[in-house]
Amino acid sequence: MAADCTDPSGVPFAELDPEILRSQRTSLKWTRFPEDVLPLFVAEMDFTLAPVIQRTLIERVQASDIGYLDGPGPLAHAFADFARTRWGWEVSPSHVHLATDVATGIVEAIRAARPNGGRVALATPTYPSFFEMFQELPVEVVELPLIVEHGARAGSGTTTLPATDAARIPTPGPTVRLDLAAIERAFAEGIDVFLLCNPHNPHGLLHSAEDLAELARLAAAHDVFVVSDEIHAPLTHEGEVFTPFAPLAAAAGALAVITTSASKGWNLAGAKCSVVVAADERANAVLHRLPPETVTRTSILGLHASVAAFTEGRDWLERAIAQIEANGDLLADLVARELPGVHYTRPRAGYLAWLDFRDAGLGDDPGSEILHRARVALNNGKHFGAGGAGHVRLNLACAPDTIREAVRRIAAILPTPQEVSR
Amino acid sequence: MAADCTDPSGVPFAELDPEILRSQRTSLKWTRFPEDVLPLFVAEMDFTLAPVIQRTLIERVQASDIGYLDGPGPLAHAFADFARTRWGWEVSPSHVHLATDVATGIVEAIRAARPNGGRVALATPTYPSFFEMFQELPVEVVELPLIVEHGARAGSGTTTLPATDAARIPTPGPTVRLDLAAIERAFAEGIDVFLLCNPHNPHGLLHSAEDLAELARLAAAHDVFVVSDEIHAPLTHEGEVFTPFAPLAAAAGALAVITTSASKGWNLAGAKCSVVVAADERANAVLHRLPPETVTRTSILGLHASVAAFTEGRDWLERAIAQIEANGDLLADLVARELPGVHYTRPRAGYLAWLDFRDAGLGDDPGSEILHRARVALNNGKHFGAGGAGHVRLNLACAPDTIREAVRRIAAILPTPQEVSR
Repeated sequence: MAADCTDPSGVPFAELDPEILRSQRTSLKWTRFPEDVLPLFVAEMDFTLAPVIQRTLIERVQASDIGYLDGPGPLAHAFADFARTRWGWEVSPSHVHLATDVATGIVEAIRAARPNGGRVALATPTYPSFFEMFQELPVEVVELPLIVEHGARAGSGTTTLPATDAARIPTPGPTVRLDLAAIERAFAEGIDVFLLCNPHNPHGLLHSAEDLAELARLAAAHDVFVVSDEIHAPLTHEGEVFTPFAPLAAAAGALAVITTSASKGWNLAGAKCSVVVAADERANAVLHRLPPETVTRTSILGLHASVAAFTEGRDWLERAIAQIEANGDLLADLVARELPGVHYTRPRAGYLAWLDFRDAGLGDDPGSEILHRARVALNNGKHFGAGGAGHVRLNLACAPDTIREAVRRIAAILPTPQEVSR
Repeated sequence: MAADCTDPSGVPFAELDPEILRSQRTSLKWTRFPEDVLPLFVAEMDFTLAPVIQRTLIERVQASDIGYLDGPGPLAHAFADFARTRWGWEVSPSHVHLATDVATGIVEAIRAARPNGGRVALATPTYPSFFEMFQELPVEVVELPLIVEHGARAGSGTTTLPATDAARIPTPGPTVRLDLAAIERAFAEGIDVFLLCNPHNPHGLLHSAEDLAELARLAAAHDVFVVSDEIHAPLTHEGEVFTPFAPLAAAAGALAVITTSASKGWNLAGAKCSVVVAADERANAVLHRLPPETVTRTSILGLHASVAAFTEGRDWLERAIAQIEANGDLLADLVARELPGVHYTRPRAGYLAWLDFRDAGLGDDPGSEILHRARVALNNGKHFGAGGAGHVRLNLACAPDTIREAVRRIAAILPTPQEVSR
């Protein structure tokens, strides 16, 4: 099938062999570890950049158009149109502000809303860099673990459909959700900022509209400023529903801003452009206090790439999502067949797969074991906060053979179930 | 002459007509003001991007190499080699750190060195955005006006060489320098940070090695952290001497870091890459406290453009400097002949010309008069701190005809000397 032969740009997967990519690319994914390590860690895609984005960037370079930005310009309308048609979220272009990237948007939005810092809460396990960002702020961090219900674990050996089967492999997996009771208790005790990760990284979890409405209600009741990081939202899988937080916040009267970017959906992490969107006029007043330099810290090349992505990159995005889903099915099958004791949470958005190795017999730090002995770089769950130890995060945005090779290497160091139970 | 026919990339100046550039470029210079305003304000060049930089950027785009950076990589050596061969400054590559841009580098370096803020001093008039940056920090700003000696004013009607004359037009101009006595008094009273602008914007002033050595001595004696913004240094004019601050700071035992970038020399403001360089090991320990996110906030495209600039862009830089000097000569002649009462400080580095309109009869706010009545956008001196009122800053990095048109428009609104003296 086509989806198994070429990447979303139509480039044969054979050209996405890691050895080839390592000779062409210079980003963190290819420089952090030695050559014999297969990199499936950081959230960069191996897929070739969308042709429309390549053309746009080359055109800007040829026009010598690499000066300062003066605001979001065409990106405000491009993002608003994308949000409306894709999610039914009506964004006022005047509520769209620029930031270098989502990390910058989060830090600067919190500085603008809570200049004296305070207590910031977030659901864990989650994206390790959030903890780095908080080190830039005068805040105390409160971890509120997600509820993980292991009613039916994925990858437990019952799913053995061949990877070429087009049907979605059933992956009941653990049920993961926000612990709203714990959030309410924390808010009542005094929380200044809640950082929502929507969809939630690393699980690829799509929070339900009901949970988000309740979060908004609690935030409004307890005067908690919510920053919703929605960077993975464009990569919501087919048939799944992403709920933007802003309309719910506005309806509940919660002070909230949304940080997002084309950087995950279209693989532009190094192009340095993101948006910070106010949920309502009150939040927009907060964002008008962002440092003026925030605008000029954003790349004009990144802005034009983002406009191209949101307006002309939608077909490419659909193909990328289809490939990620196919790779997710492939991983589910491989985990079931070759990684006994490993439990796989299938993402419903994004290309990050969260794997529970606690029953796999690799000890307390499977991420390090896999890196050093299997020579596969995954994100080590121990850096994801409470509940992350014993897990790893694997990147699905690559050629299927790269996933096969990663699983083959990991399987080779796993003890047999007999050894584990001994 | 060639220098009067094509820009540093060999593109005919006719193609740098502002009407044409406005149709091709989308940066602040071309979007801030209406179409009938001639833009000579913000520090962006009209010159075409260096071909080697265009090629480098296009190659990275075609390699889909737009992921996260993991550190300065090849830029550390590229910058160190440039600093050594151009200025005799021996930079340890391990002392080179990344930041999005110089503004980010300044703010984050001060946060790292002086987390509690304090009193920050700088010489004025100077770059207005410095004041915006300080608003991001818990600091009190102390302005220490430059010494300006009007012994012999430039552009006072005595220099009337034709613009085509290849000889350097003598421009004695005012003598501008740091007020070291005032700096010493301020340091003794308690200053935590001194922001040095080297070369100094807006005058294009090259501080003498003696003045900088004394500044370093005072900083060491009074425990003042010095951030030296050296972004305009690559554009030091032919026959002039730029003195890097780092070696003097290291020799004196002053805690200092240098922020710089290829962004001014090669016109890459929107590519978002700069370096922060430690003067010694003690300063390097400070820079190791920069937020980890500072690295990933830097653009991989900007980094590769910067490497190309520092290594393969030196010929282009020489041609750019020659054209800027020719344009500076042209402006001196035009001011002398067509702008009575205007005094021109000829830059010795960079492409920014500082013009004193206080005797020109345009009132207290000549910048606004020139914008609204002459339809020429210059930087208004009133935003440059003490000593800036009555001045404007004009951008020389354009086609000579753009300068001619700007002066023609300004001359048309100037009162005659008779009117002024009345």
